Amino acid sequence: MAAAVKHAEYPPDLSPEEQQYLLTNIKDWSIAHGLAVRPAPSFVSQAQDPSGVLATTAPITLFPSLFPRSCFEQGLAIQNAYNELYSAIARDEEWLKGIVEELIHVDDFVERLWNVHLEVKKEGYVQDLSLGLFRSDYMVHSDQSSHSLGIKQVEFNTIASSFGGLSSRVSSMHRHLLYIDAYPSSSSSIIKADALRQSKATSSLALGLAAAHSAYGSSRTGLPLCVLFVVQDPERNVFDQRHLQYALLEESGVHAFRLPFHQTLSDTKADLDRNLLYTPPSSPSTTYEVTTIYFRAGYSPDDHPREEDWTARVHLERSRAIKCPSILTQLAGCKKVQQVLATPHSPHLRRFLPDETLASRVLETFAPIYPLDESKAGQEARNLATNPDSACKYVLKPQREGGGNNIYRKAIPNFLKGLPQTHWPAYILMEMIEPPPLRNAILRNGEVQRGGVISELGVYGVCLWRKGSGESDKGEVLQNWEAGYLLRTKGDQSEEGGVAAGFGAVDSCCLVD
Amino acid sequence: MAAAVKHAEYPPDLSPEEQQYLLTNIKDWSIAHGLAVRPAPSFVSQAQDPSGVLATTAPITLFPSLFPRSCFEQGLAIQNAYNELYSAIARDEEWLKGIVEELIHVDDFVERLWNVHLEVKKEGYVQDLSLGLFRSDYMVHSDQSSHSLGIKQVEFNTIASSFGGLSSRVSSMHRHLLYIDAYPSSSSSIIKADALRQSKATSSLALGLAAAHSAYGSSRTGLPLCVLFVVQDPERNVFDQRHLQYALLEESGVHAFRLPFHQTLSDTKADLDRNLLYTPPSSPSTTYEVTTIYFRAGYSPDDHPREEDWTARVHLERSRAIKCPSILTQLAGCKKVQQVLATPHSPHLRRFLPDETLASRVLETFAPIYPLDESKAGQEARNLATNPDSACKYVLKPQREGGGNNIYRKAIPNFLKGLPQTHWPAYILMEMIEPPPLRNAILRNGEVQRGGVISELGVYGVCLWRKGSGESDKGEVLQNWEAGYLLRTKGDQSEEGGVAAGFGAVDSCCLVD
Repeated sequence: MAAAVKHAEYPPDLSPEEQQYLLTNIKDWSIAHGLAVRPAPSFVSQAQDPSGVLATTAPITLFPSLFPRSCFEQGLAIQNAYNELYSAIARDEEWLKGIVEELIHVDDFVERLWNVHLEVKKEGYVQDLSLGLFRSDYMVHSDQSSHSLGIKQVEFNTIASSFGGLSSRVSSMHRHLLYIDAYPSSSSSIIKADALRQSKATSSLALGLAAAHSAYGSSRTGLPLCVLFVVQDPERNVFDQRHLQYALLEESGVHAFRLPFHQTLSDTKADLDRNLLYTPPSSPSTTYEVTTIYFRAGYSPDDHPREEDWTARVHLERSRAIKCPSILTQLAGCKKVQQVLATPHSPHLRRFLPDETLASRVLETFAPIYPLDESKAGQEARNLATNPDSACKYVLKPQREGGGNNIYRKAIPNFLKGLPQTHWPAYILMEMIEPPPLRNAILRNGEVQRGGVISELGVYGVCLWRKGSGESDKGEVLQNWEAGYLLRTKGDQSEEGGVAAGFGAVDSCCLVD
Repeated sequence: MAAAVKHAEYPPDLSPEEQQYLLTNIKDWSIAHGLAVRPAPSFVSQAQDPSGVLATTAPITLFPSLFPRSCFEQGLAIQNAYNELYSAIARDEEWLKGIVEELIHVDDFVERLWNVHLEVKKEGYVQDLSLGLFRSDYMVHSDQSSHSLGIKQVEFNTIASSFGGLSSRVSSMHRHLLYIDAYPSSSSSIIKADALRQSKATSSLALGLAAAHSAYGSSRTGLPLCVLFVVQDPERNVFDQRHLQYALLEESGVHAFRLPFHQTLSDTKADLDRNLLYTPPSSPSTTYEVTTIYFRAGYSPDDHPREEDWTARVHLERSRAIKCPSILTQLAGCKKVQQVLATPHSPHLRRFLPDETLASRVLETFAPIYPLDESKAGQEARNLATNPDSACKYVLKPQREGGGNNIYRKAIPNFLKGLPQTHWPAYILMEMIEPPPLRNAILRNGEVQRGGVISELGVYGVCLWRKGSGESDKGEVLQNWEAGYLLRTKGDQSEEGGVAAGFGAVDSCCLVD
C-alpha cells in the first residue's frame, strides 16, 4: 500500500506560521459553513451561556486522512448490497425472532424493543413501508497472508446514523484548504484535487427522507404533511441534524420539525385510523399529519428512562407514519445479527442475498465474529476471550447499538470474570481489525493533537422498502442508493470511536493508490 | 404610512412556546449558515478560549423590520448616482484640498491622510484605477409639512463598509423563518414572501473586488496574483469579511489573503516598479503580486498607533495595487464633504453631478447639515447648537469616519462648552432625522430585548474608475452598480448605531406600502 510507504511523511510537518494559517482558516471556514457543534459543558458551562448561543468548530482533522482508493471504492460499491441485506433481514420477522430470543434474557433493551413490536403486531401494523438511512462502518485491514488491503466491517448502523450533515462539509473544507494553498507544497503530490472525495451525504440522506415522505402519499386527514425528527434534548450535534433538515426543505420542499423524544406523548397523537398527528407547541392551532419519523434518538436505554418512554415508542410504532427505522429494522442492527452473518460458514447471508456474487462481495467485508454462547463456536470464543494471550487480538462488544461500551483486548478476561456467565451471550467477540498505521492532527476545543490515528470509513445508504404480507409476498425494495460517506478518525491510543463522545474527529478521504 | 399604523401591532406578541420555537430556529440556522461573530470578551474571556474557536449568533432582529417600500426603492435606485458623485469627488483633488484645508488644523487624522496623498503625489501615482465599495446609510424621515415619507442620508461610507456578508444571510434567515411558519399567523398579512427583500450584498461586493482584480491586468512580475484584505487583528466581525472572501474565490476564482494592518511592512514590499508583493508568512517561498487592496482597517486613528503605521499607509498607497479605497476616496467620505454638499443652496453637488435630474434626486436625500465654522451658516449653527432648546433637534458629528463619537441633542451645548472654539470646525451639526416609531426584538448574546427601535438602511455600491490625468481628462467610471442592502436596527434608547460596537443588530426589510 502506497499509504503505508507514505505515512511516515504524512501529514507534512508545519512551521508555526503554516500551522497558524491552516488553523485560522479552519476556525473561520468551519463556523462560516456550519461545520460546528455546541460546546461541551466542560468547555462552556450552562451558567455562562444559559440560552445556548455559543458554538464551536466540530472536532475535525487538519488534513484529509490517507485512504486506499480501492478500499474506498469497495465500500461505496457494496452499499447497495448492504441495503438489500438489511432490508431483507428487517422483513424476516421469524428469523429476527430467533436472534432476539437468544438475547432477550440478557439484554433488557432488546427485550423491550421486541415487546414493542409484539404489541403493535397484535393490533396489526398499518404501514408497510419502511425507510432505512443506514451507515456501514469499516476499517482498512491489511491481510498478512495475501498482502492485500480490504475493508472489514466494524458495525452496521440501522438507527440514527450520524454525521452525514457534517461529513459533506468537512470534505468541502479540506478541498477549500487545498485550493487556498493552506497545505504545504511538500504534500502537493498527495493532497491533490483528484485525490479528495466530496461526500454527498447531506443531500443524499435528505433525498431519502423526501422519498419516504413522497411514498407516504397524500394526506388522509386533509391536514398539512410533515416529517418529524425525533431527537435527544439537549443535542450538541444539532447542526449535523439541521443540515439534513435544511436540505430536505430547500431541495425537496418538505417541512420537518424537531420533536424531543420525551415530548412525544404530549405533542403527538394518533387518530382512530392511526394517522400520526403532530401539533407544534409553538402553533397549537395547526396540526400536521406525519409522513415519516426520523429517529435521532431511541437507540439507547438512556433515551428511555421512564416507563412512558416505552409507551411513546409503541405509540409511534403503531402509527401510520413511515418509521426510519422501524423497530424490526432497529433490531436488525444489533451486533448479534452482524455476528451471526459473520460467523465462518454461516448459512444466513445467502438467505437474504441469494445473488452469489453480491453475497461473496459482502462476505469479503466481514471480520470473523464469534458468539459468546454455548454453541461450539461460542465455546471456542470463550477460550479465546478468557486467555490474556489470545484476548489481546479481540474486542468484546455488547449486542446493542450505540457504541461506547466496547471492551478491548487485555481488558476482556477481567471484564468477563466480573460478569455472570449467563450474561456472556449479550456480547460478541470480534477479531480486531488491524489497520495500517497512519498519522494526522485533530482540532478539538481549540487544541491540536498530532499523532498516530485510526480511521473508520462509514458509507451511508438509503433504502425504502415495502414489507410483504406473508410467505408468498416477501415485500420489495422501492428505493436503494449509496448516499455518500463519512471518515471518522481517532487517536490510536483511544479505543472508542464516537466523535460526539469526545474521542474522534470528522475527516475526509485523501485517496492513495 | 401604513407602517405607522401597523407598528402598534408589529411585531406580533409571542407565546412562550412561539418564542422558544423562533429562538431555537434562529440560534441553529444562524450558526449553520455563518451568521455569526466571535463572542465579545465580556461574554467569553480570552483565558477561557485562548485559541478563539467559539462563535455566537451575530446580533440580529427576530423579525424583519417594517420599511416603506417607496423608501427602499428610492435608496436602491439612487445608489448609482451616489457612486458617480463620490467617484467624481475622489477624482477632484483641488476641490478636496479645499475641504481638507478647513480641517487640517483640527483633525490630525485627516491631516495625516492628506500628507500620505501629498507624499505619494510628489513621487507620482502609478495606478490610475480606484475601487469603491461604498455604503450609503439612510433613515426614513417623516416630513411634517408634506406628510410624505422619504429617506434622509445619515452618512456615506467610502472605506470598510461592513456587514455586507451578514446582511445577505440575515435576509435569508428571515425568509427561512417565514417559510417554516416560525412567525405567528397573526402577522401573515405583513410578513409575506413578496414583502421580504433578499440582500445580494455578499455576491455583489465580491464581484466588485473581482472587477478590480481583473482590471488590474496580467501579472507584471510573472508572480501569481492575489487580492489583500487589510484587516484589524483581532476582528470579532471576521465572518462578515470571510463571506466576501469565499464568494470572491468561489464565484470568480480570485485568491485573497487577510493581512493584519500592523504586519503590512513585514509581509509586503514594493519592487522597483512599485508592484506590491505579498509573501504570506505561512508560505515564505511563494510571493504574490497584489492587484487590489481591500481596506477593512485604516479608517480610524486607532488603527495607526505607531509611526510605522503611517509608513505602511504610504507604502500601500504608492504601490501599483488598486486601492479600495484610495486615500483621496477615503477623504471624500469625511463628514465635512457631506456637510458641504448638504448645506442649503450649496453649489457643489452640481459640480460633480451635472445631470440635473440625478442631482435633484440625490439632493432630496440630504438632511440639512451645517458647518460649525465662522461662515454665516456656521454662525447660525453655533447659535442652534449652544442653545439647549434648539440643540435637542440636532446631532453633532466629528468630520472623520468610523462612528461612535456622535454627540446627541441636549448633550451638545455642554460638550461644546468643554471644547475650545478653535476645535469646533472639526464637527458638523446635522438635523436629527425623525423616523416613524417602530418596534422589534433583538437577540444579542442569547438575550432578547424588545421595544422601540430605529432602523438604518444601508445601500451598497460598487464603483471602479480611472482617474484623469488633468484638466482636460477628468477620468471615467468603468463599473458602477448598486450592490445590495443592509438594514441595521438599534433600540431607540441608544444613540449609537454600530452593530459590532454592541449597540445594534443586523436586520432585513419587510416592505410595507
